[in-house]
Amino acid sequence: MIAETISVGTEILLGNIINTNAAYLAEQYARLGISSYYQTVVGDNEERIRESVKLALSRSELVVLSGGLGPTQDDITKDVVAGLLGREMELNEAAALKIREFFAAKGKRMSTNNLRQAMVVKDALVLENGNGLAPGVLVELTKSEIAAVGKKGLKKQLIMMLPGPPEELTNIWEQQAVPYLQKLSGQVILSSMVKICGRSESEVAELLDDLIRKGGGGVTVAPYAKTGEVHVRVTAGAEDEKAAKKLLKPVIKEIKSRLGDSVYTTHEETTLEQAVADLLKANNLTVTTAESCTGGLIAARLINVPGASEIFKFGCITYSNKAKRKIIGVKRKTLDRYGAVSEQVVREMAEGAVDFTKADVAVAVSGLAGPDGGTEEKPVGLVYIGVNVCGTISVKEYRFKGNRMKIRNSAAACALIQLRHCILEYYSRMTFGEQENG
Amino acid sequence: MIAETISVGTEILLGNIINTNAAYLAEQYARLGISSYYQTVVGDNEERIRESVKLALSRSELVVLSGGLGPTQDDITKDVVAGLLGREMELNEAAALKIREFFAAKGKRMSTNNLRQAMVVKDALVLENGNGLAPGVLVELTKSEIAAVGKKGLKKQLIMMLPGPPEELTNIWEQQAVPYLQKLSGQVILSSMVKICGRSESEVAELLDDLIRKGGGGVTVAPYAKTGEVHVRVTAGAEDEKAAKKLLKPVIKEIKSRLGDSVYTTHEETTLEQAVADLLKANNLTVTTAESCTGGLIAARLINVPGASEIFKFGCITYSNKAKRKIIGVKRKTLDRYGAVSEQVVREMAEGAVDFTKADVAVAVSGLAGPDGGTEEKPVGLVYIGVNVCGTISVKEYRFKGNRMKIRNSAAACALIQLRHCILEYYSRMTFGEQENG
Repeated sequence: MIAETISVGTEILLGNIINTNAAYLAEQYARLGISSYYQTVVGDNEERIRESVKLALSRSELVVLSGGLGPTQDDITKDVVAGLLGREMELNEAAALKIREFFAAKGKRMSTNNLRQAMVVKDALVLENGNGLAPGVLVELTKSEIAAVGKKGLKKQLIMMLPGPPEELTNIWEQQAVPYLQKLSGQVILSSMVKICGRSESEVAELLDDLIRKGGGGVTVAPYAKTGEVHVRVTAGAEDEKAAKKLLKPVIKEIKSRLGDSVYTTHEETTLEQAVADLLKANNLTVTTAESCTGGLIAARLINVPGASEIFKFGCITYSNKAKRKIIGVKRKTLDRYGAVSEQVVREMAEGAVDFTKADVAVAVSGLAGPDGGTEEKPVGLVYIGVNVCGTISVKEYRFKGNRMKIRNSAAACALIQLRHCILEYYSRMTFGEQENG
Repeated sequence: MIAETISVGTEILLGNIINTNAAYLAEQYARLGISSYYQTVVGDNEERIRESVKLALSRSELVVLSGGLGPTQDDITKDVVAGLLGREMELNEAAALKIREFFAAKGKRMSTNNLRQAMVVKDALVLENGNGLAPGVLVELTKSEIAAVGKKGLKKQLIMMLPGPPEELTNIWEQQAVPYLQKLSGQVILSSMVKICGRSESEVAELLDDLIRKGGGGVTVAPYAKTGEVHVRVTAGAEDEKAAKKLLKPVIKEIKSRLGDSVYTTHEETTLEQAVADLLKANNLTVTTAESCTGGLIAARLINVPGASEIFKFGCITYSNKAKRKIIGVKRKTLDRYGAVSEQVVREMAEGAVDFTKADVAVAVSGLAGPDGGTEEKPVGLVYIGVNVCGTISVKEYRFKGNRMKIRNSAAACALIQLRHCILEYYSRMTFGEQENG
């Protein structure tokens, strides 16, 4: 199937918002094995929306429109589609009831405009919105509609309209659209995301070269880079879920065997910080942070994991030298001799942070995020990251590129990766040591 | 002038990257008073790029393509445009020299593919890339080219090709494209961004209703909402810079007079955290943080301001109750009686953070970011923010919506806003007090 996204909204054309919906839908198509060749953005303008839908129908089987389903006079997506197909609009009673109840519960007067959200294209499927008042609308084009405005020769063509607010769009997509599309395809497409950290994109591409080129028997393997990470999407299609899983399994196993510990998850929703938090939890460890240039970014990522309180109690942002000395006991001599951005100072930060907080593990960072303050010897982008796992401290030097924000984000990502690596290493050594002794 | 963006890159269609270039260009068009009705994304496919350029030329005066100027065989943007116009490609010697020197300096062998980046459309303007090897290319269509593939009746049509990496695209846009377009328009378009915090979008829209509707004599006024903020773009066009400034000035003054202290800047590049850091610096104040649910986000924003070391020395992430007690002296009794998410605890956090760090100002946050842990009395989204300015403490209650990340980001934004507000209030009271006494 070929899908195409049309994002409706003047605010996107003005650069006021970034079009994350289009990226979300694009990734979802890839997950479902749906191809996509075009994305369009168009303003809240009747003629231009109509032209965009016509063009999309001339080349794609599934046209997904996002935005323009709200209560205001600007919200015209459904009317334009109905007009193009020559269908009437009708009130959907379930959606209307939900809107009336919403206002009644709030004790607010409902302006009649709000009922516009319950108007749908006649004979369309109504896709319930779990996070808002405007339902999605799915139109299966009739044969004569395909002949009139669709792509000749197609048996099936669909127009799906979703609301613009991301939490509403994703809710309808996941709850309603995905099951519908899977049923339609008669094929189950399964997809897994193998997430890798601590390896470069080219390194991963080289190690998986044959799998990426040939795939592995009906399976496609596609890598792409994130800050500090590489994600590899593995997709397989088969007649049923069991058969698709059977195709996926050996390929994922093969990737894991080639990349070893660098694979931190094969679950789509698991983030790096979640994986690190899980690892800490599994080993009954608490972690603390002593951040200088990252200034809270590492802690902020760890604390975004639900239930972070089990592993994170207290963290420090020791931005000044004085804070490094007074709070976490970095020696004045060390600061004077080596400077705040040095292997030695970060080592003492990682040591002192544990002493001060009594956490089991500490991650410490000091670096030059710029734009000023760089020298030939210590250029902007130089960052030291230290990790202390139950007394075993290791410090690594990094040289990051980009602006202040980019350097800080890269440092935070690498700190999480180094933290994970050091914990794994600590326990593998411990096991090895125990075996030797035993 | 009407402009249209075509983003070239299969990685966007796969959802692997978010199309921030399109948002950047859209905002830049708005700043320059250029209208834009469409954006398109297309993969690295010759036929589809050509069709997209043809369509764009049929309706827009300026077609900006981003991406596909790199060294690989996938990078075909320039070839497609040359083919469409029936022009040859030629080597740009300056760009070729730069590429050769780059590899020579690195002591690396240069594959011939790299010279593809120096190939440009014949008779085009070459736009120097200050951040990379691939120059931009600007083609002014000839009359016969406009007649053949352009929009009938137009005197001028332009195709601009820019590299995909954002730092390269923005460099060429700012250094080369903007001066060119301003000269071309024969009109100077000036634009200012009035940034407002602590007011809702509807409040701002109501206060500025007449200005938004009518503009003020050749000036357009357009508001839009960000997390915790409202930005109002004010744009004016005139024959020269002086005349444009003269148009802008009274409108900006009027907006400021209606919104008062809520306006934190009229400079495009100034962020809320920059404004807060400037305010602290101007009053010779240092700030500390005691963050629970935001877990470092407030500190991370403040430390993203270059030169943050002047105002930020040390911050705490007191996520556990024990950390709140032991580090910043929240009383066990207060925690037991009111719970960690309470006005009373946040007040003690704001007090204790100053005692502990000797900073002049503290901002403290405790809240329920979810997804679990909410009760009827204290639902997920309930957040208390306390600010201590030289001993004067005020605490506010907020109820945020959304997922864990959204609640935390909203809380961090509101903390910065409240911090700014409290400092302003402190000094206005002090001045008032001094006057009374004097």
